[in-house]
Amino acid sequence: MTPKTLHSVGERKLIQMLTATRGSGAGVLVGPGDDAAVVRPRKGRDLALKCDAIVEGVHFFPATAPQWIGHKAVARVLSDFAAIGATPRHLLISLAAPASTPVQRIRAIYRGIHKIADAHSVSVVGGETVRASQLALHVFGAGDVPRGGVLKRSGAKPGDIIMVTGALGGSLAGRHLRFLPRVEQGRWLAEKKWATAAVDLSDGLSTDLSHLITASGVGADVLASEVPIAAAAEKLRDGKSPIEHALKDGEDFELLFTVPRAKVESFATAWMRRFDLAVSPIGFITREKGVVRLINDDHSVQNITFNAYEHFSH
Amino acid sequence: MTPKTLHSVGERKLIQMLTATRGSGAGVLVGPGDDAAVVRPRKGRDLALKCDAIVEGVHFFPATAPQWIGHKAVARVLSDFAAIGATPRHLLISLAAPASTPVQRIRAIYRGIHKIADAHSVSVVGGETVRASQLALHVFGAGDVPRGGVLKRSGAKPGDIIMVTGALGGSLAGRHLRFLPRVEQGRWLAEKKWATAAVDLSDGLSTDLSHLITASGVGADVLASEVPIAAAAEKLRDGKSPIEHALKDGEDFELLFTVPRAKVESFATAWMRRFDLAVSPIGFITREKGVVRLINDDHSVQNITFNAYEHFSH
Repeated sequence: MTPKTLHSVGERKLIQMLTATRGSGAGVLVGPGDDAAVVRPRKGRDLALKCDAIVEGVHFFPATAPQWIGHKAVARVLSDFAAIGATPRHLLISLAAPASTPVQRIRAIYRGIHKIADAHSVSVVGGETVRASQLALHVFGAGDVPRGGVLKRSGAKPGDIIMVTGALGGSLAGRHLRFLPRVEQGRWLAEKKWATAAVDLSDGLSTDLSHLITASGVGADVLASEVPIAAAAEKLRDGKSPIEHALKDGEDFELLFTVPRAKVESFATAWMRRFDLAVSPIGFITREKGVVRLINDDHSVQNITFNAYEHFSH
Repeated sequence: MTPKTLHSVGERKLIQMLTATRGSGAGVLVGPGDDAAVVRPRKGRDLALKCDAIVEGVHFFPATAPQWIGHKAVARVLSDFAAIGATPRHLLISLAAPASTPVQRIRAIYRGIHKIADAHSVSVVGGETVRASQLALHVFGAGDVPRGGVLKRSGAKPGDIIMVTGALGGSLAGRHLRFLPRVEQGRWLAEKKWATAAVDLSDGLSTDLSHLITASGVGADVLASEVPIAAAAEKLRDGKSPIEHALKDGEDFELLFTVPRAKVESFATAWMRRFDLAVSPIGFITREKGVVRLINDDHSVQNITFNAYEHFSH
């Protein structure tokens, strides 16, 4: 028997399959099946909105386990909510797929989507499926932040300590698919007002730190010896040093944020009491507008330039 | 000089170009440029969420004027907001495009996006660009409805009169790109509580009416002589009758809704005072669950079956 494809099943049936057990959840008034979803917003909070997309051949490959495709698509958006200190609540999934795609692959992708959504108490309230030449997932998220309490990139002040969660580099070995977005941590940073600015590490430490200091109108000094390097980056034998990987590899999806120097000790104590996740001070904010410098172990100083992953230039 | 492509310009520059004048607007706290957008929701209203996608080769073609590609992508989402009586407020645009796409084409698409967004006082607060083999626009919209006042597909009652705006059929001649979403009308229908159920006509009258009666657990009789037929459908000489086009062609993006019989005269008067847009009673809701019948001029009766545009089955 040939496996069922999207072509043989059809769009309506596909949507019914994918949304059969969905759309309930706290505050959902109208789930999948009507012209739009309707949810009840939380009182006294601002609304956070974000979309992101992953495309076959760019962010994942034909051989990628489909559950992790779904996981990654959602986790990337949740990571952006983490970066602004927002709580994600609702997702819409826009799926583009060739008609020849096996239904089993799509179902497995959605299992990945639903698993991470459930883990964060996020409801999938709607979506769309379209025929396309290439598999892609566009994920839209809505959530909320305390009124006026959004954690922006632009609040870092000279003297603030730069902190980073987890360990960096070498995510291509697997972490770029299976990472856990730091939603709880971002939310806590914003609600307890520990952080002055934050960003999630999607383009690599040097690039994302450059974004943060540009938005804040400041500079940054990073101490090479303090940057936490992932085991996956240590293991690579590709001619680049582990610190280069930690600075330049994309898709770490850890949080980078700044904490006022005076608060840093009480912050570290509170963090360790609350989370079972490493957090490292890696440097400090300077007055050198737009300049990110790396201070090496031998005290030599290096300018770290932007290293944006430019989607259309590769 | 060769025209600039996305490849030569790069993603960061592209996003800067596209969002340069954007992100302001009522209630926008954080626009493009941070990890997510943040907006202030309106008090006492529920939140409406919708996404939709259009893909080159399916919903538009290489020769389609790019402004109308942008217009259509947004107008489809606004039409869904109209169908539930919601006011659209904010949009996020997720663009997938080959690196070889001329920048001028993308800019023109965004001019179309911004023009219709501005016309409806909707802010483009964020978005994403990804490299892909095929041009596609995934549009996410957020808006609001009066608390508890969403206009669903499921409220039609036997005896209700079925109304439709505008004229139907033959949209492929151009209206499928240039249609005006009935946002003001949908909003008014919900806020004045005229309608018991509504849907926008994206798949064709017979299919979308089938959706409405299925959701409502009722049936419908449509009088062929009362269905307003678009001039474009009258002109087609393709072997199908104009009424067939009006019943089965997709992408009319008019509103189909039901009004209690007792209210129909005051509704018609109020509508004509308010809108310069035709509205036609085309039949009535019956107790025949799941059955849509067409009553022809010669009093013959025809069962109109579902005619869904199944994306993966074409």
